Amino acid sequence: MTFGSVFSGLWAAFGLRNSDARSSGNPSSGARARLRDLGIRIGRLPTGPHNAITDVRGVRVGHKTNISGSGKLVVGTGPVRTGVTVILPSSGNVYKEKLPVGAFILNGNGELTGLVNLLNGGLLETPIFLTGTANVGIVYDAALTHLLRENPEIGVTGRVPVPVVGECWDSLGDIQGRHLSEDDVLGAIAGATDGPVEEGAVGGGTGMRSYGFKSGIGTSSRMIPANRGGYTVGVLVNANHGSRHLLRVDGVRVGEELLRYPEDEPEKSKSIIIVAATDAPLLPIQLNRLCKRLALGLAKTGSVSTHGSGDLFLAFSTVPRDEKSDVLWTGENVVSSLWEAASEATEEAILNALTASPTMDGADGSIRYGLPLDRLTEIMKKHNRL
Amino acid sequence: MTFGSVFSGLWAAFGLRNSDARSSGNPSSGARARLRDLGIRIGRLPTGPHNAITDVRGVRVGHKTNISGSGKLVVGTGPVRTGVTVILPSSGNVYKEKLPVGAFILNGNGELTGLVNLLNGGLLETPIFLTGTANVGIVYDAALTHLLRENPEIGVTGRVPVPVVGECWDSLGDIQGRHLSEDDVLGAIAGATDGPVEEGAVGGGTGMRSYGFKSGIGTSSRMIPANRGGYTVGVLVNANHGSRHLLRVDGVRVGEELLRYPEDEPEKSKSIIIVAATDAPLLPIQLNRLCKRLALGLAKTGSVSTHGSGDLFLAFSTVPRDEKSDVLWTGENVVSSLWEAASEATEEAILNALTASPTMDGADGSIRYGLPLDRLTEIMKKHNRL
Amino acid sequence: MTFGSVFSGLWAAFGLRNSDARSSGNPSSGARARLRDLGIRIGRLPTGPHNAITDVRGVRVGHKTNISGSGKLVVGTGPVRTGVTVILPSSGNVYKEKLPVGAFILNGNGELTGLVNLLNGGLLETPIFLTGTANVGIVYDAALTHLLRENPEIGVTGRVPVPVVGECWDSLGDIQGRHLSEDDVLGAIAGATDGPVEEGAVGGGTGMRSYGFKSGIGTSSRMIPANRGGYTVGVLVNANHGSRHLLRVDGVRVGEELLRYPEDEPEKSKSIIIVAATDAPLLPIQLNRLCKRLALGLAKTGSVSTHGSGDLFLAFSTVPRDEKSDVLWTGENVVSSLWEAASEATEEAILNALTASPTMDGADGSIRYGLPLDRLTEIMKKHNRL
Amino acid sequence: MTFGSVFSGLWAAFGLRNSDARSSGNPSSGARARLRDLGIRIGRLPTGPHNAITDVRGVRVGHKTNISGSGKLVVGTGPVRTGVTVILPSSGNVYKEKLPVGAFILNGNGELTGLVNLLNGGLLETPIFLTGTANVGIVYDAALTHLLRENPEIGVTGRVPVPVVGECWDSLGDIQGRHLSEDDVLGAIAGATDGPVEEGAVGGGTGMRSYGFKSGIGTSSRMIPANRGGYTVGVLVNANHGSRHLLRVDGVRVGEELLRYPEDEPEKSKSIIIVAATDAPLLPIQLNRLCKRLALGLAKTGSVSTHGSGDLFLAFSTVPRDEKSDVLWTGENVVSSLWEAASEATEEAILNALTASPTMDGADGSIRYGLPLDRLTEIMKKHNRL
Repeated sequence: MTFGSVFSGLWAAFGLRNSDARSSGNPSSGARARLRDLGIRIGRLPTGPHNAITDVRGVRVGHKTNISGSGKLVVGTGPVRTGVTVILPSSGNVYKEKLPVGAFILNGNGELTGLVNLLNGGLLETPIFLTGTANVGIVYDAALTHLLRENPEIGVTGRVPVPVVGECWDSLGDIQGRHLSEDDVLGAIAGATDGPVEEGAVGGGTGMRSYGFKSGIGTSSRMIPANRGGYTVGVLVNANHGSRHLLRVDGVRVGEELLRYPEDEPEKSKSIIIVAATDAPLLPIQLNRLCKRLALGLAKTGSVSTHGSGDLFLAFSTVPRDEKSDVLWTGENVVSSLWEAASEATEEAILNALTASPTMDGADGSIRYGLPLDRLTEIMKKHNRL
Repeated sequence: MTFGSVFSGLWAAFGLRNSDARSSGNPSSGARARLRDLGIRIGRLPTGPHNAITDVRGVRVGHKTNISGSGKLVVGTGPVRTGVTVILPSSGNVYKEKLPVGAFILNGNGELTGLVNLLNGGLLETPIFLTGTANVGIVYDAALTHLLRENPEIGVTGRVPVPVVGECWDSLGDIQGRHLSEDDVLGAIAGATDGPVEEGAVGGGTGMRSYGFKSGIGTSSRMIPANRGGYTVGVLVNANHGSRHLLRVDGVRVGEELLRYPEDEPEKSKSIIIVAATDAPLLPIQLNRLCKRLALGLAKTGSVSTHGSGDLFLAFSTVPRDEKSDVLWTGENVVSSLWEAASEATEEAILNALTASPTMDGADGSIRYGLPLDRLTEIMKKHNRL
Repeated sequence: MTFGSVFSGLWAAFGLRNSDARSSGNPSSGARARLRDLGIRIGRLPTGPHNAITDVRGVRVGHKTNISGSGKLVVGTGPVRTGVTVILPSSGNVYKEKLPVGAFILNGNGELTGLVNLLNGGLLETPIFLTGTANVGIVYDAALTHLLRENPEIGVTGRVPVPVVGECWDSLGDIQGRHLSEDDVLGAIAGATDGPVEEGAVGGGTGMRSYGFKSGIGTSSRMIPANRGGYTVGVLVNANHGSRHLLRVDGVRVGEELLRYPEDEPEKSKSIIIVAATDAPLLPIQLNRLCKRLALGLAKTGSVSTHGSGDLFLAFSTVPRDEKSDVLWTGENVVSSLWEAASEATEEAILNALTASPTMDGADGSIRYGLPLDRLTEIMKKHNRL
Repeated sequence: MTFGSVFSGLWAAFGLRNSDARSSGNPSSGARARLRDLGIRIGRLPTGPHNAITDVRGVRVGHKTNISGSGKLVVGTGPVRTGVTVILPSSGNVYKEKLPVGAFILNGNGELTGLVNLLNGGLLETPIFLTGTANVGIVYDAALTHLLRENPEIGVTGRVPVPVVGECWDSLGDIQGRHLSEDDVLGAIAGATDGPVEEGAVGGGTGMRSYGFKSGIGTSSRMIPANRGGYTVGVLVNANHGSRHLLRVDGVRVGEELLRYPEDEPEKSKSIIIVAATDAPLLPIQLNRLCKRLALGLAKTGSVSTHGSGDLFLAFSTVPRDEKSDVLWTGENVVSSLWEAASEATEEAILNALTASPTMDGADGSIRYGLPLDRLTEIMKKHNRL
């Protein structure tokens, strides 16, 4: 009996429709849809060409997704539902050509290694990694291996960098088994590309869950008007937060209308990591402030940032810092437009994570349901949004 | 020709309806409506009896509203559109019986005196004052007069406290004239009461403006379930922030549908001060975190917290601190429910400030329009919310 | 009987020497000595020409000192022992040509208005005022008067600035009387000069007390090597902190050796405000870090920053910010040298406040003793430092 | 030829005395002396019985020291000069019985994983690990292994904790080789004991360097008077910071008097991690403030906290938090005494790290010299301190 047939029976039991019933426990299953494919648009600013963080020139994203096994949890064996996502912040060597960076902690019940260093010096010097909670040590160490290969002077004549690794609790599989290797991390880096970004249950988002639905990686971007600089803000999230009743889609209380839709283990979803990139020449103090607007975009999807959440946000500018070059103070109107772009892109990136992520099974027969897209469409129509 | 007749002509010119056309440049005009009077409810938690910050036992609110003159701006003369609002945090002497307090700075382009002291020691020891930007020094000094009268040991054997005074730019009248006296401040304190709180263009909110509409003071409260402690969270805002296109009412993009409704001086509204009270025995570290949820409630009304905004938030617990007594660590589930209550109450308090505030004229013939309630009702119906 | 004769008797009673016995309750009395006049040098970096914050080009300092009356405390009458000191950060109009600024809160039991604004935007836009705790409202309001006169667009077309006013508890006189007027504040501004800075019991430092001795204003400066930019760091303190036993002079435990020297009211001295200026083109994030080094300099004089202390620090760069111009990221070696300069100048500025301040009488016959300079010299000799 | 004979030649070349010439590149060599063994006492408060962090009841410390090889650096082979130190904060299971915690970042150019989590919730839930920069990932992962063994519910029904791992750049050996295993970390935990703590070039301190001398782990403690609660503050440092000319021993400028004493690679020592423990029932907000006093103690040894330093401080209370029990607000006088204790213990712990650490050779024939104890004694005598 295949996963597909198992789920078909479950769908019938819950009165679900087939369109909701894809399993990506099967690694061949891809993302389902982006929010805009459904006709829903967030905000008023235009997106970049890919509506993704990679619309900021030089930014690349790579995933390594580890899915295997099913059924009963056997620690060290599986089922495996984990992975890692990497954001390469520039086309160059970021250790050598560091970038201005800022951060904000909305709720700190989680980990984003390197935050102390980023906030102190205002410079990003490593790629950014997103993974499951139990993999942080592995990814940190693998990231150092990567940095040593690219910069053999590290630890000899050069300072040892602090890799940036953010985690959410990917509670769908065998967490304790830590099913991620150094090669997985190096593979994600090697495979990073610009262009469209795969969303949903991939990479670091493989085991995630938001607002009571299967979730994971989502991305979006916005461009501000040419007379304010024409800059781009791109956002990528690993979304694992929120109770179902809170979910708002473009302001519509979708969560409340889906309270009786089946749901697993509400207490196990908690955190969201949000990363923003921009080609605006912002200073660290301004990037810290931009990160607070990521929280405002998150709030518009309904979040109240619960006690146990690690809601950690980071933003960088791709305008490199050079001791001999200069950095502009960007004007006030430009800044406010960037804030609006950051809020809009975050709101949409989170919803993209939900619409992209199909239903997935996990350990001990648990099922994490994807947001039902046809129900979503119905609700939005009822509220005159479609 | 009376104000009324002037406005009637203006309404006709803009195609406005009479129901929108109340002037509170006339001090006899009161608040118009609360959001719930219109049938709009935010969130799922029940309100306290007054749906106000005064639902937290012991909390009292007083206003002094200074409105006089009209027409051309004459510095030092008028027109006068200013005032002060005071929140007395307990029925006792807060200098002697200090209360746990926390704060959060969403955007710091403003002032809330005492913040440094509150964040350091975690104790509130003075009333909280809300006023126009140019009045801060006057209110600070008057607050000290009040504290000295109640506590003659101050400066002799007792430490001199730092009064808490928050400001927003009440740009409707003669700012430079600073039309507020020590007696006004002492009068606001003397007149503070529990029970219902007057909202809109009163006290510190007299000259305010939010999302392109006349605004001012708003309040709301929430109660969490008995099995999580049955605590109350009350919120009071002085709202002077946001561009019109951003306004969301219960998630509906009301601002976008009212872009052509008349509006004055968009660049002059900036800040919001939010104060929360609770009878939950929270520690300062937890009250800091509660304040971040005030930002999440603000975001749900549409804000992106623009560059020039002073978005400063403060929360206190009415469970007094006593060196000899004890303070509980409140459990995690309780805390998350309080976060939800704080977000809901903030969202509604801001909308109450808008629905309460009538159109008001200002210096040099400017007119600040109240949110048109009949148009609001129509829009909410169109989106199937009423 | 004159003050002088009163004190002569007291000195005899305590076995003190005449050289310690100057009273500056008499306003004609000036500073006694600078630390270097005694042959004591702090650190290894050279000072600027005046060994003062005014060595940073464009910085000016003004004092208004209010001393009158003696004997029994009569609230509203005296004795008066208060004042205000102003630092004008540039020779231009700082509201129009704002300067990069940073801050650090070592212990926040005090007030420095505007801190929230400075930390948010990283720009200083008003002079910096130092005064007694009870005068903050008066000085804040007077500062606004000054700003309005220089910038009539404020509150009409321009944003209302937040003046920067730092306080310490000048407990020697009639605090409650708030013996400072708007004219006093405007006079301090009008009288501000570059060149040598008067130290000790003047201006905002009139009623202060540090390490159990009469204290007040102190200043110092350092220059870093030409191959690291040749920049200057200037520091000015209003010192009102510390218990006597903690005092260290250039590392020598002078306080412990003067424990039996007479002392008034140890519990009433608490806070220190430290302001640093530099002509290095630092960013706000770097100025925040510079401010932490002011704490390290403070520590070297012995401080443990007690519970009730308001130890609030601020640093600005005189390289103006212009949206169209550029700001350098200053290199790492330069930064570390600036940190050392900041620590050294702070340590010396605090000691200058002590050596400058003569014994002064206060309300109800209290006497605040100046650090006995001949005893200091003896102790330093004993430890082979002179 | 043994290490000893190699060094004897070097000593002769530098005109050094034999008493300075112990090598702990040979793992059998132990600590040399504690500061008090030399007759030097810091401050006025009494120490606990062991003058160590373990004087706080329940606190245990374990080291694993990896030293092997010498001569030319071969990446992956050696020489090996690294290790790990663990602080177990209570005699119980800290994941189950969490402890109040606070932190402070003096300069953030480093890493202390978990800081975000500690600052947010105010609760410590894992042991604290100190290691070399390149080992952070390995130690983090091994710490999770330890926690999983003790708490099998983690990741299944229980939240995955964030281990606390602090690093300094142990630049003496083959950094890139990361010569530390999971077993090493588990061994350090298994071997942790209360009682006296081994200091100097052991555990996480093996490769460290401070003020131009060989350094590493140091510890000290202070007890405050019974009438202020009789509490103990214990401090443990991993010291790897500071330029030689800055070193002050009990205020005496020892560094300046040893400028010509031989020194290796001054640019490679940077950071200091300081951990404090207390049995005073402090709240997180107070523990944050205590951590700032660790910076004041550090400053008294001369530090200016250079640009590249990771000066990260953490403090915990051993009074467990229990949702059902209570936590006292500790009174103000108690707090100030604890601040003084924290400053004193930090100053002495750093100096203990220096006096304990013998000269050690490193990669490529480098030699890191121990602080010459006989020269130290001479200098202190010259300044009338001995």
